[in-house]
Amino acid sequence: MNAADVTISEVGPRDGLQNTKHFMPSAAKKAWISAEAAAGVHQIEVCSFVPAKLIPQFVDAAEVLAHANAIPGLTPVVLVPNFKGCERALAAGARRLTVPISVSEAHSMSNVRKTTAQAIEDFVRMADLVRSQARAERPQLVGACSTAFGCSLQGVVAENDVLRVALALREAGADAISLADTVGYANPEQVKRLFRKVRKALGEDFDIEAHFHNTRGLGLANALAAYEVGVRNFDSTLGGLGGCPWAPGASGNVVTEDLVFMFESMGVRTGIDIGKLIDVRNTVFAALPDAELYGHISKAGLPKGFQPLSQTA
Amino acid sequence: MNAADVTISEVGPRDGLQNTKHFMPSAAKKAWISAEAAAGVHQIEVCSFVPAKLIPQFVDAAEVLAHANAIPGLTPVVLVPNFKGCERALAAGARRLTVPISVSEAHSMSNVRKTTAQAIEDFVRMADLVRSQARAERPQLVGACSTAFGCSLQGVVAENDVLRVALALREAGADAISLADTVGYANPEQVKRLFRKVRKALGEDFDIEAHFHNTRGLGLANALAAYEVGVRNFDSTLGGLGGCPWAPGASGNVVTEDLVFMFESMGVRTGIDIGKLIDVRNTVFAALPDAELYGHISKAGLPKGFQPLSQTA
Repeated sequence: MNAADVTISEVGPRDGLQNTKHFMPSAAKKAWISAEAAAGVHQIEVCSFVPAKLIPQFVDAAEVLAHANAIPGLTPVVLVPNFKGCERALAAGARRLTVPISVSEAHSMSNVRKTTAQAIEDFVRMADLVRSQARAERPQLVGACSTAFGCSLQGVVAENDVLRVALALREAGADAISLADTVGYANPEQVKRLFRKVRKALGEDFDIEAHFHNTRGLGLANALAAYEVGVRNFDSTLGGLGGCPWAPGASGNVVTEDLVFMFESMGVRTGIDIGKLIDVRNTVFAALPDAELYGHISKAGLPKGFQPLSQTA
Repeated sequence: MNAADVTISEVGPRDGLQNTKHFMPSAAKKAWISAEAAAGVHQIEVCSFVPAKLIPQFVDAAEVLAHANAIPGLTPVVLVPNFKGCERALAAGARRLTVPISVSEAHSMSNVRKTTAQAIEDFVRMADLVRSQARAERPQLVGACSTAFGCSLQGVVAENDVLRVALALREAGADAISLADTVGYANPEQVKRLFRKVRKALGEDFDIEAHFHNTRGLGLANALAAYEVGVRNFDSTLGGLGGCPWAPGASGNVVTEDLVFMFESMGVRTGIDIGKLIDVRNTVFAALPDAELYGHISKAGLPKGFQPLSQTA
């Protein structure tokens, strides 16, 4: 395993799949997760414990998590939308749980039919449940501030609202906070300003992570801006999978392989073997022939004389 | 006209067209230039004075330049590959000439069959010719350091070679220097480092401009990095037109409308009306139905509540 300066968390098997038309067979999901772990991706969000009747894609969540839990060196992450999902995830052996809380009231009502305050109350109960687990290693809980950079329903989201939610989640016992640009509204100035504010409020040592979409093309520029103000944990999806059904033609998450290329070319070690990562893209997506893929480095190829910092054996 | 913090120079009618399969009718080129000028783009590279037998696309260079010269408030730029082209451009009334000089010897030999030193000698002669013009306003001469961030033939390009070429061009009488990432190899760290070095060598007040391609997806991140170290002049093309024939599927220049969106959303005034700019894209490219277009903001739309800083009447 290589030393790494940043943690790239692949969220494709969750964020990338939740809007795809077709069910990705469990075997293909497992092969994807295994192959990316072998390329040096040590954190992967593998599924969502959302009710299968809402998103049938995740009917096999427990099975996929069990597979991921058995991969040495991998920290699987699961998304948990509510208390019931948290119970299911813990029962299935989840070691790192991400709970999204919409800072935008409009988005919160539309997404989970709760006010932001009600969603935070649920988070407090989930944090208590996580703390009460009788395990050698307590599961980690991440509070994800959704729509932190703006909302397609509400428009502008006040930075003080983000601060308030982030503080409440840490207060409840979150081990880390993520700021998520759910609808691709963020710009680099805003990214720097908001991460600095949240860091100042939560303390230098508290783990604050970034989740960017590339809907308006600024995904990598925003990641660069976040890196410049000290962020070291980034979500992304292979092939940028995860286009939004409400913005047809617009791309999805930040593209993992392009993000890895940006960092490695800057001299920032990701621990990820970019050559192997591109191979994963090329093979895995045979299982998702209808999905729209994005990304540049897989098409253009690595620069002549490019020296990757991170390579696997 | 709005005040602007950065100058976005549209280079689509030159860089975007030089590799397209089909001739764009002169009337369509003129309409494009007029429409973009009306959207607030005050600098446009309108043509190349390359021999028409090499690139037939520019057989109408003088006619297109004459049209652009008549647009109030617009500074048309022309590309000049050699002394003969410089003579033709000046005879046609060029007011701002860009001369590319490849820092990579391999690229220089392949592109103009001259060593970099021979190309610089030509530049000296062109600078003398420009200086000798009997005009009220002397034409401006820009020395563009091509392959400044790497070369697909040579691989790595030494930063000291870039410095040496930049100094020689200023010495010869260049009014500005451009650092061009001709093949899309640049990364943000390198961009900051090289622009800082060149600025230190050429002096704080000397105009140093940026020309990025988006071949490997880092175009906007590189523009952000350059902005952060004081660069205020950026080339780009509408729709990212200008894919490289040697890298099929890879995208071309930085996308003008995405670059404008990035800056305006950051609070950096471009002077350009992004709504009108997107309209230009949608109408102009009816004249280039086979060209591959890129870009995000035209598909995703502006964020809800977005307040552009720059608008035309």
